Amino acid sequence: MAQTDIVVGIDIGGTNTRIGLVDREGRCLSETAIATNAQEAATQLVARIVRSIEEQYAPRKGSHVLKGIGIGAPNANYYKGTVEHPPNLAWPGVTDIVGLFTKQFPIPAAITNDANAAALGEMLFGAGKGLRDFIVITLGTGLGSGLIVNGALVYGHDGFAGELGHMTVDPEGRECGCGRRGCLETYASATGICKTVFELFALRRAESELRRISFETLTAKMISDAARRGDPIAREAFEITGKILGRKLADSVLHTSPAAIILFGGLAAAGDLIFEPTKRHMEASLLNIFRGKVQLLPSGLREDAAVLGSAALIWNELEKE
Amino acid sequence: MAQTDIVVGIDIGGTNTRIGLVDREGRCLSETAIATNAQEAATQLVARIVRSIEEQYAPRKGSHVLKGIGIGAPNANYYKGTVEHPPNLAWPGVTDIVGLFTKQFPIPAAITNDANAAALGEMLFGAGKGLRDFIVITLGTGLGSGLIVNGALVYGHDGFAGELGHMTVDPEGRECGCGRRGCLETYASATGICKTVFELFALRRAESELRRISFETLTAKMISDAARRGDPIAREAFEITGKILGRKLADSVLHTSPAAIILFGGLAAAGDLIFEPTKRHMEASLLNIFRGKVQLLPSGLREDAAVLGSAALIWNELEKE
Repeated sequence: MAQTDIVVGIDIGGTNTRIGLVDREGRCLSETAIATNAQEAATQLVARIVRSIEEQYAPRKGSHVLKGIGIGAPNANYYKGTVEHPPNLAWPGVTDIVGLFTKQFPIPAAITNDANAAALGEMLFGAGKGLRDFIVITLGTGLGSGLIVNGALVYGHDGFAGELGHMTVDPEGRECGCGRRGCLETYASATGICKTVFELFALRRAESELRRISFETLTAKMISDAARRGDPIAREAFEITGKILGRKLADSVLHTSPAAIILFGGLAAAGDLIFEPTKRHMEASLLNIFRGKVQLLPSGLREDAAVLGSAALIWNELEKE
Repeated sequence: MAQTDIVVGIDIGGTNTRIGLVDREGRCLSETAIATNAQEAATQLVARIVRSIEEQYAPRKGSHVLKGIGIGAPNANYYKGTVEHPPNLAWPGVTDIVGLFTKQFPIPAAITNDANAAALGEMLFGAGKGLRDFIVITLGTGLGSGLIVNGALVYGHDGFAGELGHMTVDPEGRECGCGRRGCLETYASATGICKTVFELFALRRAESELRRISFETLTAKMISDAARRGDPIAREAFEITGKILGRKLADSVLHTSPAAIILFGGLAAAGDLIFEPTKRHMEASLLNIFRGKVQLLPSGLREDAAVLGSAALIWNELEKE
């Protein structure tokens, strides 16, 4: 009987790490989540991931062949296979993650950040299938991005390309975790829209069910629920977020002229509430030659998107050879 | 005796069209300029260019072989080989320029806009030699740009990528030829710095030799000459231009993480006057992971840059095969 090629997709997040086995069609054959445990050394986390891979692979050894390992992680350097100074993990300096895995499994492994992995996931299995030029924007705690140009992910000369979350909206604007001010992700992200709601509490007199919620408690989900019930503050917050995001996406289009921009992650789950104003303001801000040409699409990946993205990374590497 | 391969480089400008023969090392063996004659039909201009090619090639027929034709032109569509609605030429609609040339010479031909051709020229023959990721910015009447990613020019899904001159500096800002407002090229270009000088006449009380020059007469060259003599208005105009350009380049770096940005064209000829403030403000605005990594370089092409760029376009195509 013919054996089926599969890869491991690993997504190392600040809280949880997900590990799955994925075939070339983007089917997730199995998946587990383990706690990342931010205080633990990298070698210990890798040992626990290796155990999970072995458990998932054991019952399939006759029928499936493991071809590679793809990893998505914060502050990942694709060229070196390392994670460098991750802000939310106790891994000092530079950690050779790819090396730790290839010591256990003598097969190809690759690492990149989660937004780049998401872009490759969309290209191989999602809304970017068949497109050679597109941009993926992840709207989570921050704003991540991955650029596909001519059918390949853009890494740049140092491996760190695609940091659109740090485009400057206002040099005197909101403080950003990067130490600068007014970065796009301080406005257009799940946390950014919460900040906008609190600004609107000060600016507007309108009643809002959100006024009784504290800053630390408010979530993007609460804002979208309120907006669907017609809450004026929540609705205006989406309008402002879409305006700021749409205008900056119009600048990004000038760089690589993508056929589509795919919105992904927590805030994108708000659907039309975020897509409609973003699309409208992007179109209004686009240079004429690009108007009406750039699709704004929801992700085509399902819930296991993070694992699929990491799997796509290594499938893509395997096919380069 | 072995024959030397050569190509034709053609730069169709609003005023003049330059035609040259260029070898693989970027040596221009001969070059002529003819008037473009904006009122003439495209077929007539092409006929005159063909005559110039034949005249230049005739004495070299035994020793050289013509391998291809590269063309730089405004509003050029690389994918279709056409020029579409050029603003400064009387060519209605869409003109199949590549087709007009291949009818005369049965060899490969390609067309792109002048800034893209300049980027390829820098990659093959100039300051981008050996670099796989860089951006070329042409600071002339407008601001043109060409992006090189992973050793290839970025065309985008429709062939129009790299329009950085239309990044928005201020949505309420200066009127741009594109119909929008506050585009980067209305500030950072040879004409943009002239506008800034006139704004400064209103804002500042300082004496300036430029105050006796009319708006229609002022050139970027006059401003750089005055700045070298210490003129305070001229010096501040360069500072402001460098600030606006440097900040926007910091946004561009986030997209493709280039190893270098190459400044080219009339305003770049001002040297340190424009490089120093642009570099300083770019560094101050860069996301920390990119700081100190991006070189700001002058063009490595000499005076025949436009012809070399077009020649590089077709050399690059010939080597793809």
